[in-house]
Amino acid sequence: MQSDNPTAAILVIGDEILSGRTREGNAHYLSQVLNSIGIDLREIRIVADDHDQIVAAIRALDKSLGGAWDMLFTSGGIGPTHDDVTADAVAAAFNVGIEINEEARRVMTERWQSRGVEVTGNRLRMARIPLTATLVPNAHSAAPGFHIGNTYVMAGVPAVFRAMVEAVVPDLPTGRPSVSEALEVLRPESDVADGLREVAEAFPELSMGSYPFQRGQRYGTNLVIRGLDGARVTQAMTALRERLAL
Amino acid sequence: MQSDNPTAAILVIGDEILSGRTREGNAHYLSQVLNSIGIDLREIRIVADDHDQIVAAIRALDKSLGGAWDMLFTSGGIGPTHDDVTADAVAAAFNVGIEINEEARRVMTERWQSRGVEVTGNRLRMARIPLTATLVPNAHSAAPGFHIGNTYVMAGVPAVFRAMVEAVVPDLPTGRPSVSEALEVLRPESDVADGLREVAEAFPELSMGSYPFQRGQRYGTNLVIRGLDGARVTQAMTALRERLAL
Repeated sequence: MQSDNPTAAILVIGDEILSGRTREGNAHYLSQVLNSIGIDLREIRIVADDHDQIVAAIRALDKSLGGAWDMLFTSGGIGPTHDDVTADAVAAAFNVGIEINEEARRVMTERWQSRGVEVTGNRLRMARIPLTATLVPNAHSAAPGFHIGNTYVMAGVPAVFRAMVEAVVPDLPTGRPSVSEALEVLRPESDVADGLREVAEAFPELSMGSYPFQRGQRYGTNLVIRGLDGARVTQAMTALRERLAL
Repeated sequence: MQSDNPTAAILVIGDEILSGRTREGNAHYLSQVLNSIGIDLREIRIVADDHDQIVAAIRALDKSLGGAWDMLFTSGGIGPTHDDVTADAVAAAFNVGIEINEEARRVMTERWQSRGVEVTGNRLRMARIPLTATLVPNAHSAAPGFHIGNTYVMAGVPAVFRAMVEAVVPDLPTGRPSVSEALEVLRPESDVADGLREVAEAFPELSMGSYPFQRGQRYGTNLVIRGLDGARVTQAMTALRERLAL
């Protein structure tokens, strides 16, 4: 799909995903949010709770550090326990220090005190924020995320991740959301490949995907046309239906 | 977790994942299979149906090409339509040619003829296999996957992906499967962080993870201890229960 929309990557951090214990869902959620505001998600990486892997991935993905994409969103590894190494790794990737952030401490302490929760050293560990970063509000619980360079660092707990995504979306650059139309045909993919390719060549600015499925003994294909101009997508779908004699 | 198990990465190829249309499931499935046979999954990448992105990812991930991990498994992009570019990208990554593979043609033609399906050029496109690659059998449908260098190239359709995983598992090097024990405590993560860290320091060969959750107004934490030696995992869990006075 031709687009000059801003681009993005997602970095998911967590041993529990790689071990198969947890099925990743935050990237799937954010992929839909980004698509709806016209940011083109180009890559997702999932790495372990490992300092060096996280540093390397951030540098490879955040354009402000010479990486590939305009924006980077991370999920996971910012909790209070020893296996939460994301904040330190982000500081290292950006070559800045990390210390207790007074605004984070204040926000967290107020929230905890209102709930009668004791403020411990472990809890305050979550107020350690890389220098020069700004906070990402957390409407769901106490500990904030943060934003540094073109990277948005958010929690892995799904409800907190979503709250942080909602907080950052209004500040993101946006593009034209892509629109798509889908067509289910009860023919195997190879029977529709010629027609699909011809229509794709006639509409080079659109993206055409085909996704085979099997239902009992029948083979079928979902055809998806995606682009920035809804009228052109509809034209292409009409052309595809005609070409496939549907 | 200390381990000299073989390592692996998964590369998922597909615009439909990045657009949010489809929730990825093949990597989650394979992560569990790899864990069960003692292969340490270290990284998952998801990229578009884009030649250059696929080439770069394969070279970064397959040790036989100077990449990071012992083995690479790919999912997606080997169908018959114009948006299926994986086979050509794999050939480019390994710097070999690609042409119709006679064994693939024979296997596919036999299967199609037994079902009365016409053998078309589009179908035969799926027999284009990088030179020097060996085939990965497909017990589910006609088109095979393939194996080149340390990379196993498999289909994205979940049922076909699983059939190909079953076909390659017997040939993979294996290690010691990790075992884990989990403990759910109805305390917030920061209340158990000290105990967890102390036990983690006493059992440096094990991995200890903590995963917070919320149930109504109660905060809780799932504690997971993982390692190669089940007896040590049990010892560590006993120590953790004692430390947390459970």
